[in-house]
Amino acid sequence: MRGVVLHATRDIRVEDREDPTIKEPTDAIIRVTAACVCGSDLWPYRGTDEVKEPSPMGHEYVGVVEEIGPEVKELKVGDFVVGSFFASDNTCEICQAGYQSRCVHAQPVGAEGTQAQKARIPLADGTLVATPGQPDEDLIPSLLAASDVLGTGWFAAVAAEAGPGKTVAVVGDGAVGLLGILAAKQLGAERIIAMSRHADRQALAKEFGATDIVEERGDDGVAKIKELTDGLGAHSVIEAVGTQESMMQAIRATRPGGHVGYVGVSHDVELPGLELFFSGVHLHGGPAPVRRFLPELIQLIWDREIDPGKVFDLTLPLEQAAEAYQAMDERRAIKAMLTI
Amino acid sequence: MRGVVLHATRDIRVEDREDPTIKEPTDAIIRVTAACVCGSDLWPYRGTDEVKEPSPMGHEYVGVVEEIGPEVKELKVGDFVVGSFFASDNTCEICQAGYQSRCVHAQPVGAEGTQAQKARIPLADGTLVATPGQPDEDLIPSLLAASDVLGTGWFAAVAAEAGPGKTVAVVGDGAVGLLGILAAKQLGAERIIAMSRHADRQALAKEFGATDIVEERGDDGVAKIKELTDGLGAHSVIEAVGTQESMMQAIRATRPGGHVGYVGVSHDVELPGLELFFSGVHLHGGPAPVRRFLPELIQLIWDREIDPGKVFDLTLPLEQAAEAYQAMDERRAIKAMLTI
Repeated sequence: MRGVVLHATRDIRVEDREDPTIKEPTDAIIRVTAACVCGSDLWPYRGTDEVKEPSPMGHEYVGVVEEIGPEVKELKVGDFVVGSFFASDNTCEICQAGYQSRCVHAQPVGAEGTQAQKARIPLADGTLVATPGQPDEDLIPSLLAASDVLGTGWFAAVAAEAGPGKTVAVVGDGAVGLLGILAAKQLGAERIIAMSRHADRQALAKEFGATDIVEERGDDGVAKIKELTDGLGAHSVIEAVGTQESMMQAIRATRPGGHVGYVGVSHDVELPGLELFFSGVHLHGGPAPVRRFLPELIQLIWDREIDPGKVFDLTLPLEQAAEAYQAMDERRAIKAMLTI
Repeated sequence: MRGVVLHATRDIRVEDREDPTIKEPTDAIIRVTAACVCGSDLWPYRGTDEVKEPSPMGHEYVGVVEEIGPEVKELKVGDFVVGSFFASDNTCEICQAGYQSRCVHAQPVGAEGTQAQKARIPLADGTLVATPGQPDEDLIPSLLAASDVLGTGWFAAVAAEAGPGKTVAVVGDGAVGLLGILAAKQLGAERIIAMSRHADRQALAKEFGATDIVEERGDDGVAKIKELTDGLGAHSVIEAVGTQESMMQAIRATRPGGHVGYVGVSHDVELPGLELFFSGVHLHGGPAPVRRFLPELIQLIWDREIDPGKVFDLTLPLEQAAEAYQAMDERRAIKAMLTI
């Protein structure tokens, strides 16, 4: 099969790779319908995360079940499925508490790469959720978004306790931040402040439910959020970047007793204990337990109540993956979808 | 009046000081019945926090209202009152959300020191809670505990979401940690693990509701907590120390999706972003909004359902404050009460 491999900084190649095979009786093999490039794929692409050996890429996917292991009971060949970037049994105590990304048997799906024609999905019954039927073509981007960016933005909004009567600020205007806005809107937030300085992203933010745009960053951005909230700060802040600046911006923009939901993978972040202590905020985040939200998100998409697929402003065939990475790296694209 | 003043590291003196007077129309002057030495008083006492000038000490207190400003409406002269270490109006949006320690008009009561015969309490109507009547002598220690250590331990337990079905671990066996145990028990926790290596504190921990004792600290302590919780970690962890080691111990002892309630004032703490991210815990804490809990705590004490005053294992007259500090510094006393 063909699949995307990162060889070194900014060296993305589409190559012939071995077809995946069932290794464990709980595995499924899917034919990938669409995959995409994640903001977190850019960390190794840019060399921020070291690339020690050629690495198969991708952890977001939708596809059709092609083969199942003997212990797979819930899925059948031909099902159209959406899964998360962490395989999970969905039965352990941690999964049952809603933290499937930290399942006691969790395995990163991305280890073998889903930017490929096929993928092996471990713990298939726990990991994959079948759609109600074969989806219309135009639903594919939204279902693909559910696999990571929508689920992650949704988790951030839930972690930030976005809801009725709340003012929610969103740090980060990438796909996750934008879908955090969509989630906050769905969860009933009263006011949603998008922090963005890019016209195209501002437009999408408003389409997804943002009521205000703040272009300032850092301390100026915090001052602006305070100005918009009677000097108190937002009730809920979504952090969707993962840098020291963005984390501090999020914490400082939150009122005492408010909630920060952070989903940007932390890079070189050190949180100062004393400032955090006196901030009085709630802090919750981490790798989103997307699986928790998948049934609900798939239904909302199926019923055409949300259209998260709008974050894909570039669609390319798998063979042009290198261009997809480059466009996202250069911020020419918010998010790139790869059709397979 | 007589009052305690810290002149330099370990130099505590009881001196003649000016009687406090009404400065703002919302002030009250109270005759202090009892005060005490807080773990946080030991930071400047030990020189960890620099002492730049002679500082009046103390921020925990119970007493009798002696004089009120013209705008004080809820309290009257003669009321026996308990208050928190932060004065708060109890009416602003932040107070109403339960974060009185971060009231938009918050003032630290300790600025003028309550280890003294009298104290000025700002925003008296919002800050002070009157007991149902004049308390019996034997209730004084417990009411005094409500002023800070009980309210702080209670907040930590609430922030850690201690409750039915939960396993709660407590890092720190000072008065706050011990009262965190009492709070967790009252909140219905199923299992409470005290982390302590001192026999006297272990005994009190058990009296307050601890079901298990772990003597190990750091990584060994974390391993022990995991061993006691099927390898998962505790649902809820109370952090009541404030050091790098204790914070990391608390975070690492918590299961993914679990809750850390931290109330030890952070000293030289830097939380590593990436580890925190992948821990998947909820983190909440800060200066406890004791005022939120005072009505409930006073009632529980009044009805003799809880006896938090047991944390005072040393009672001395105000004039012997230096010995009270020394005994706590040397860990000869868990907590010292000063009668006035």
